Amino acid sequence: MCALGGGVPATRAHIAKADAAARALKKPTPIASDPVDSLKFGTPEPQPGGVKREYWLQAESFIWDPVPTGRDEWMKMPVPSKRKFRAFGYRLYDEGYAKPLGPVQMGGPALTGEVGDTIVVHMRNGDEHFNQAVTFHPHGVRYTPDYDGSYLGKFTRAGGFIAPGEEFTYTFECTPDSVGVWPYHDHGPNHVVNIARGLFGSVIVREKGAKAPDVEEVLVLHQLPPQVTGVPRVLQCINGRAFAGNTPTIRAKVGQDVAIHVIGGDSMFHTFHVHGHRWQVGHRNEDCPTVGPNEVITARWNEDNPGRWLYHCHVFTHQDAGMAGWLLVNP
Amino acid sequence: MCALGGGVPATRAHIAKADAAARALKKPTPIASDPVDSLKFGTPEPQPGGVKREYWLQAESFIWDPVPTGRDEWMKMPVPSKRKFRAFGYRLYDEGYAKPLGPVQMGGPALTGEVGDTIVVHMRNGDEHFNQAVTFHPHGVRYTPDYDGSYLGKFTRAGGFIAPGEEFTYTFECTPDSVGVWPYHDHGPNHVVNIARGLFGSVIVREKGAKAPDVEEVLVLHQLPPQVTGVPRVLQCINGRAFAGNTPTIRAKVGQDVAIHVIGGDSMFHTFHVHGHRWQVGHRNEDCPTVGPNEVITARWNEDNPGRWLYHCHVFTHQDAGMAGWLLVNP
Amino acid sequence: MCALGGGVPATRAHIAKADAAARALKKPTPIASDPVDSLKFGTPEPQPGGVKREYWLQAESFIWDPVPTGRDEWMKMPVPSKRKFRAFGYRLYDEGYAKPLGPVQMGGPALTGEVGDTIVVHMRNGDEHFNQAVTFHPHGVRYTPDYDGSYLGKFTRAGGFIAPGEEFTYTFECTPDSVGVWPYHDHGPNHVVNIARGLFGSVIVREKGAKAPDVEEVLVLHQLPPQVTGVPRVLQCINGRAFAGNTPTIRAKVGQDVAIHVIGGDSMFHTFHVHGHRWQVGHRNEDCPTVGPNEVITARWNEDNPGRWLYHCHVFTHQDAGMAGWLLVNP
Repeated sequence: MCALGGGVPATRAHIAKADAAARALKKPTPIASDPVDSLKFGTPEPQPGGVKREYWLQAESFIWDPVPTGRDEWMKMPVPSKRKFRAFGYRLYDEGYAKPLGPVQMGGPALTGEVGDTIVVHMRNGDEHFNQAVTFHPHGVRYTPDYDGSYLGKFTRAGGFIAPGEEFTYTFECTPDSVGVWPYHDHGPNHVVNIARGLFGSVIVREKGAKAPDVEEVLVLHQLPPQVTGVPRVLQCINGRAFAGNTPTIRAKVGQDVAIHVIGGDSMFHTFHVHGHRWQVGHRNEDCPTVGPNEVITARWNEDNPGRWLYHCHVFTHQDAGMAGWLLVNP
Repeated sequence: MCALGGGVPATRAHIAKADAAARALKKPTPIASDPVDSLKFGTPEPQPGGVKREYWLQAESFIWDPVPTGRDEWMKMPVPSKRKFRAFGYRLYDEGYAKPLGPVQMGGPALTGEVGDTIVVHMRNGDEHFNQAVTFHPHGVRYTPDYDGSYLGKFTRAGGFIAPGEEFTYTFECTPDSVGVWPYHDHGPNHVVNIARGLFGSVIVREKGAKAPDVEEVLVLHQLPPQVTGVPRVLQCINGRAFAGNTPTIRAKVGQDVAIHVIGGDSMFHTFHVHGHRWQVGHRNEDCPTVGPNEVITARWNEDNPGRWLYHCHVFTHQDAGMAGWLLVNP
Repeated sequence: MCALGGGVPATRAHIAKADAAARALKKPTPIASDPVDSLKFGTPEPQPGGVKREYWLQAESFIWDPVPTGRDEWMKMPVPSKRKFRAFGYRLYDEGYAKPLGPVQMGGPALTGEVGDTIVVHMRNGDEHFNQAVTFHPHGVRYTPDYDGSYLGKFTRAGGFIAPGEEFTYTFECTPDSVGVWPYHDHGPNHVVNIARGLFGSVIVREKGAKAPDVEEVLVLHQLPPQVTGVPRVLQCINGRAFAGNTPTIRAKVGQDVAIHVIGGDSMFHTFHVHGHRWQVGHRNEDCPTVGPNEVITARWNEDNPGRWLYHCHVFTHQDAGMAGWLLVNP
């Protein structure tokens, strides 16, 4: 599998080949080559006082415009119109897939839990277009190998291969060292391509009874490379959108507890800068930390600075290709 | 705006186009599309016990040789002589621009303040060559949107567009969470190119009454790409200079409190290594931390190791193209 | 010295030229251009209660297969067979080079010490193939300029140039701020190429009397670029091996104290992710930290999760080209 140009296969032809290989792949029959491969695991229950938090997700493909306004509001410039492509997303549904809870989009919902809870994810592969196995692999929470959600060749466990039309239920535990914000993403046989198409999201785990911040936003920084989208230019996105006015516009009020969690969603390294703000991390103040692939940083402050502020990745190539947005603070 | 090859537009032609667009741009008339755009702000005063620290800076262009000795003193090799180009710098002047305080150079002066102070920057765009609007945008200190120093298209505020020949006065506050070392740089309509030309510097904010280290150096790591300089090779610089003997030679004595602040000044990621030294950051010891674009790390130690030492970025491509220098420690 | 394509000279021809230049280079006669260049240094002794830990290393070249199984066990795929090349390694010997302690391999032995100890490294350049000067340069421990192990042009000290057939003895001190895990590597006149060939390893310094973790592994992440190996593809390696089943398979048992130290061994930035595990660093939990060139991160946990787990760099280009392995945990 070649891998040049943004961390994914280098050309449209390579992507097509990766897709064809994934479509042809059958669910592997597990082979035990080591005693650990024969271990059996149960399904964990919440700790005393904890609850089970249940989510219904469906992997769906859809047509997506990463720049719906057609404009970069920061630089006051139009963005060329050829931008739509077929994306892939985790869509949130009501109990038992009764009805979707909102539109399908790049970047799945933020799943939340508290220490002692279990997070139960029903995951259905509802895509007929890409027609290949996908999975759900979270960071940060605890899981047994059955719920790892990773294709592992001949060592693949139950949740590591959800074929089109199939459904699987994962159970994850929120342990004390799960406190934080984490990415989740596809980890099936073609996950590098399918993550680039949009199969990613976030998990937020808090201490038991902890108050959520007044304003809380998860920003996944990721590029849309031409070989994935067919769009002639690289778009540098936040949650599937590029350029201020399209990326999330965050709103806060003076006095609020504001938390922005930033996740590296591709193979690039980024930094995260917010104008007019800085925050303390451990022993030091910062306003532009590095965030690597699937790493997470949190910028959290008590809001005290009203106005219109820019936030952006400080890698200029990323910033200039769309990785920027607005923070609007009311007095 | 394309952006390949070092985080700036990819070719000389693209740079010429970006320059032409910036020269043609008129100061935007602000438009309020949200209530926050209509907010009015005053100019902050120092806190009780604090002082106003005033600086006069002028943006000037000038001819610059990044390797004045013509040699790499580490590898004992000559550096090809075609190296001069037109750079851009923030030059420090006496009160009221009476006279320049030293020569113009890449990397503006380190501005300093203590918690409770205001830092007032008079900024004059004195360049007739590039002939385009520039600004002054600091990290770390507090400012209102008027003093953000960022071009924001139709949302541009007072300090976000200083046309050639114009002057603007910014006021910044040193708050408790401003303690640290921070970059400042142009954030005008063509800032990606103009930062690469040299429009950057540093701000140091200390606790009230804190003693400065005995030896304190700010090193900005940044490349000079051929499409910006016209020089046929990439030079990997520290404060505008490449190769040991040209980059800052830092001098210390055993027993001194030494602090080196390292700022990522381009779109690349770097690490910073000093031979013969290591330092504690939080709970761990390190001698080669990562520093991303506009991120800052501080290496601080009590000097105990006399001799000639190399410091360098540990990315070999950067080290070999000039990002290295000497630390000379006397007994 | 050009430097494109993986942090080393860009083509086979450039590498050949760098090799030829290194072979032709004579040991420099030191010149004092500053008083520090005339300083004389003794050889440090262990602190009271400390010991001298002595190692005999020889730099040797050898033929190496980075994928001895010929397969990627994760993705259940064959790896093309043209993979062998001439590598360079630090091989550990018995006292006085009586006999080698194990086979020669990419990635030298982990040298260990405690605070107060000295680590003495006898280093012999035993290579007749590459036929050029090499050195031994450690991070983290304390050394005088004589034991810096760095070629510095006309400022080169005793240990900075070990010609083929020569031997040099370095003495390093384990100071309180040496506690941690650190890389060592060649820092001779052609070190960028020779590190890429395998001249690297690790040093572990513990507090006096500190218990070692039950399971401790050092993983150096580094690429093997085609221009160095002659192999037609980039291999992304861990300790000289690529693809799960070839890279280190780490084994642990529930209840054990597990520490994995990860070192960036090339010019790339990486992140390190372990499935089913997370760990605390300072104030936060993480499972995918950034690790830059010659930076070190430690993932340490109390083992509680049996099964077969994947560990990998989360940069997809690296992961897909071999930078992944197994962690097998028994109940």
